[in-house]
Amino acid sequence: MSKSVQLTESQMTWIRLETVAAILHRASDLELAKIGLNLPQVMVLYCVKTSAEPMTPMKLARIMHRQPHTVSALVQRMEVKGLLKTTRDLKRKNWVRISLTSKGEQAMQRWPTVTNVPDTLTSPLSKRELQTLSEITKKLHAAGLELIRQMQTDRYAEPLLW
Amino acid sequence: MSKSVQLTESQMTWIRLETVAAILHRASDLELAKIGLNLPQVMVLYCVKTSAEPMTPMKLARIMHRQPHTVSALVQRMEVKGLLKTTRDLKRKNWVRISLTSKGEQAMQRWPTVTNVPDTLTSPLSKRELQTLSEITKKLHAAGLELIRQMQTDRYAEPLLW
Repeated sequence: MSKSVQLTESQMTWIRLETVAAILHRASDLELAKIGLNLPQVMVLYCVKTSAEPMTPMKLARIMHRQPHTVSALVQRMEVKGLLKTTRDLKRKNWVRISLTSKGEQAMQRWPTVTNVPDTLTSPLSKRELQTLSEITKKLHAAGLELIRQMQTDRYAEPLLW
Repeated sequence: MSKSVQLTESQMTWIRLETVAAILHRASDLELAKIGLNLPQVMVLYCVKTSAEPMTPMKLARIMHRQPHTVSALVQRMEVKGLLKTTRDLKRKNWVRISLTSKGEQAMQRWPTVTNVPDTLTSPLSKRELQTLSEITKKLHAAGLELIRQMQTDRYAEPLLW
């Protein structure tokens, strides 16, 4: 059986990106385990903390590009851990608002002071490479959102937050 | 409560990369669902197909940078779906070898012919940006592996395969 698969240059780029994403996740999770968190939890804390509007599980799912049921389960686990609290919206009873507890607030403020992963990963990059990476990231972000919009029928149009 | 979190430039870069990774995953999963696959399954098929050596679940976990128990469960589900078969190694009874079934082989050959995600995502990038992205990816890959090695005590040193 042949060992080769015929891939185009863009398909190889996609596989390299996917591999790097897996490595970043693994490195981040190993580091975050030391402070009792994991990557999805940090992303939830960051999204809730920096959002200008009240946060709901559905909105969080759109911003994080995850399935709503995955995010609901994540929010529930984080509430049990005391990092988040959820309250029913007074105007729309079926809406749940998510906010940080003081423990969640402390965890979010602590994360940037203890993490070494972002600095260590980007340290081999030149200033020009970092700048190009930022431009590339924005283009991939926009192209990815457009693709998702075409493939998905429900509303999925969160703007670029950062 | 303040809405701001003080982050460094590299921490913001890390969050942007994480967001783009989530978007790439979502777009890929939406597309792959049409041919009855998902992203981790395609990565398993690709790794098993292109490996020069016999593949084991432990080796797969290292290449994919996932937890061994996650990969074992994934391999089991793919065996039930008829995409993979596992056989005991004749020399080392506790080793399991993974290989593609003809259905898995067909799925792997079919994927590059039906996927539009890689082309669409990279089409807004200039030739220079694509080249820089390739260099950046290699540096992030190497820096990430080094970080994981420092944080993890067990053997974790798969070379760059592509």
